[in-house]
Amino acid sequence: MHLSKLIPIALLASSFTAVSVQADDLLQKAKNAGLTPIPASKSELLKLIDDPKDPITAAKVELGKKLFFDPRLSRSGLISCNTCHNLAMGGDDGVPAAIGHKWVANPHHLNSPTVYNSVFFTAQFWDGRSPHLSDQAQGPMQAVPEMAAPANLVKERILSIPEYISEFKSAYGNDVEIDFPKIADTIATFEKTLVTPSRFDDFLNGDTTALTDAEKTGLNTYIDKGCSSCHTGIAIGGTMQPFEIAAKYKFAHIGDFTGDDKGMVKTPTLRNITETAPYYHNGAIWTLEEAIKEMGSIQLGIQITDKEAAEIKTFLAALKGRKPVLTYPQLPEESDNTPRPTFD
Amino acid sequence: MHLSKLIPIALLASSFTAVSVQADDLLQKAKNAGLTPIPASKSELLKLIDDPKDPITAAKVELGKKLFFDPRLSRSGLISCNTCHNLAMGGDDGVPAAIGHKWVANPHHLNSPTVYNSVFFTAQFWDGRSPHLSDQAQGPMQAVPEMAAPANLVKERILSIPEYISEFKSAYGNDVEIDFPKIADTIATFEKTLVTPSRFDDFLNGDTTALTDAEKTGLNTYIDKGCSSCHTGIAIGGTMQPFEIAAKYKFAHIGDFTGDDKGMVKTPTLRNITETAPYYHNGAIWTLEEAIKEMGSIQLGIQITDKEAAEIKTFLAALKGRKPVLTYPQLPEESDNTPRPTFD
Repeated sequence: MHLSKLIPIALLASSFTAVSVQADDLLQKAKNAGLTPIPASKSELLKLIDDPKDPITAAKVELGKKLFFDPRLSRSGLISCNTCHNLAMGGDDGVPAAIGHKWVANPHHLNSPTVYNSVFFTAQFWDGRSPHLSDQAQGPMQAVPEMAAPANLVKERILSIPEYISEFKSAYGNDVEIDFPKIADTIATFEKTLVTPSRFDDFLNGDTTALTDAEKTGLNTYIDKGCSSCHTGIAIGGTMQPFEIAAKYKFAHIGDFTGDDKGMVKTPTLRNITETAPYYHNGAIWTLEEAIKEMGSIQLGIQITDKEAAEIKTFLAALKGRKPVLTYPQLPEESDNTPRPTFD
Repeated sequence: MHLSKLIPIALLASSFTAVSVQADDLLQKAKNAGLTPIPASKSELLKLIDDPKDPITAAKVELGKKLFFDPRLSRSGLISCNTCHNLAMGGDDGVPAAIGHKWVANPHHLNSPTVYNSVFFTAQFWDGRSPHLSDQAQGPMQAVPEMAAPANLVKERILSIPEYISEFKSAYGNDVEIDFPKIADTIATFEKTLVTPSRFDDFLNGDTTALTDAEKTGLNTYIDKGCSSCHTGIAIGGTMQPFEIAAKYKFAHIGDFTGDDKGMVKTPTLRNITETAPYYHNGAIWTLEEAIKEMGSIQLGIQITDKEAAEIKTFLAALKGRKPVLTYPQLPEESDNTPRPTFD
C-alpha cells in the first residue's frame, strides 16, 4: 500500500521537472523562431499601436466603434464594417468569399480577413496594397462589391446626423474637419484596440504553465515543420510572403487572386484561427487540418502527417484570444436630411 | 429695482403652479386615453412579460442574445435577427422594405418592425397572424425572402456547435430537447427583455416634471386629435386595427400588403419612433411630420396642421426609451460538422 502510493507521486515529480525544463527550452525556441507576444502591460502595448500624431483616446474609440457598427456607411444602409468583420465571430464573416452590395461576391473570390489584431500587420489587404488601417478602412466603404458608398455619400450621411458631429468635435476638437479620411481614421483607431492576447502570449511572456503539454508539443511541431518561417512575429502572420513556393495551390478558382505583382500574398494571422474558417485567400478550405497540410505542400514542400497536423491544430487553438468586451452601441438618429439608402 | 426683481419671481411662481395643475390634468387625461406606462418596478414588469411555464432566466437571456446575433441561423450565414431588427438602430433596419436572402426585398414591400417592446404587442407581424414572440421568431428564420433557413438546417447548425449544446443544457437542464421551437423560444425570451422605458413612462408613473412643456403640449394634441384611439396601451400601438378608415393610403405600391382577411393591420408601436424611419407597413414615408398628417387623413379623417404635426412629433420624440445595455456577444465556434453556408 505504501509503495503503490509513493510510486505515482515520484512519477509525478519527475514528469513535472521534465515538462518544466522542456517548457523553458521551448519558450526560447519560440522566441528564436520570431514568435513575439502581445505585451502584457498596457503601456508596452500602446508603444506598438499608438500614433503620437493621432493618439488613441476613449472618445475616438467609442466614436470609431459606432462607425464600425453603422450600416449607414454603406450605400444600401444595410452593410457595416462589422458585417464582414464580425466581432462576435473571430472578426470575419465565416463565408468563403465576401458578399457585398446587392449580394455580389468579391470578384476575385477573396475571403474577408479578421480585423482582430490587424493593427500588427505590416500590410493590409491580401495583396498588401495598403500600409495601415487608416488607409485600409477607406477601401471597403467605397468598393462596389462591398459597401459601395462613394466617399461623398459617407461624408454627407455623417454630416447629416447631429449627434455624430458633436461626437467628432468631442473627439478631435471643435475645429475638426469631418471628411472621409477622418471618418476612416476614427474607424481605424477603434480597430487598433481590437487586440486579443491569448494563453500563448502568457506563455511567451514567461508563464510556461499557460499552455498544456499537448499545446507545447503542437508548438514544437509548428516550429520544427517550418510554419513559423511565415506565420511569425506578433501577428503570427501579417507580412507579405511569396505564395506557392513549392507547389501550386490545389483549390484555386478561375479568376482567383494570384497575389501582388510579384506574386506575394499577405500571410493571414493565425490568432483566433479556430474561429475564422473557411481558410485561404479564397476560403476554399474548411478544416484546419486540411489547411495545415496544404500549407505544408505548397509552401514548405513537405508532407505533414495527420498526427502532425492534429498537433499543430491543438497549438493553434491556444491562439484563441481574450476579446475586448464591447457594449453594443446605440447609434445616433439620422435627420430628415440624411441621404436615403439606395439599392442600385 | 425691488419691483423689477419681484415681478419675474411672481410670474415664475404662478407659471409653475399653472404648469403643475395642467400636468396633473394631462396625466389623468393620458390615463383616460388608455396610455399605460411600462412599470417602474421590475417585479411589476415581470408580471406582464414573464411566462411561469418558461420563466425568464439570465442563462436563457444570454443564450437568446447569442442566437439573436448569430447569422448562422440563416441559410447564407450572413443574416441574423439583428440584421433587420438592429438593436443599435431602434430595433429595425432603416430601409423601406426588408431585404433578405440573396438581396431579395419582401414581396409585399413590408417594412421591418422594431423588436423593442414587441413583447407588449397583442399580435405579431403586420397582419397579426402570430400570437406571441415564440411563434413569431420561427417565421423569419424560415421565410425565403428573409433568413431562408429550413427549420432542420437551423437545428443541425446549432446541434453541430458543442458550446451551444452546453448552453442549452445550462439554460433548460440536461434533458432539454434542442429543436427548432426551443431555439425560437430562447430568442423570444431574450426579446422579451428588450423593453425601453422612456420619459413618458416616468410621466405616466407620476413624475409630471419628466416631460417638457412642449412635450406636454404635444401629448395634449396627440390625444385631442385622436392618435391615442389606436396608438395606446403599454405598447402605444401593437394591436390590430382597421386601416384606411377614412381614406385610401396615398403611398401604396402595386402588390402592397392590404392587411389581414378583414383588412386589419397591426398598429406599430410609437416607442422609439424617431429612430425607426421610414414609416408605414411599406416604409414609404420618411419624415414623422408627413407620417402624422397621412395618419390624420386616412385613419381619422382630419387635416392635421403643420403646427399640430410639429407638436405631436415633439411628444413622440419623448418616447425614445432607455435601451438595455448589451455586451456584444462572442459566438460559439462551429465544428467541422457544421452545415456550410449556402447561397442558392
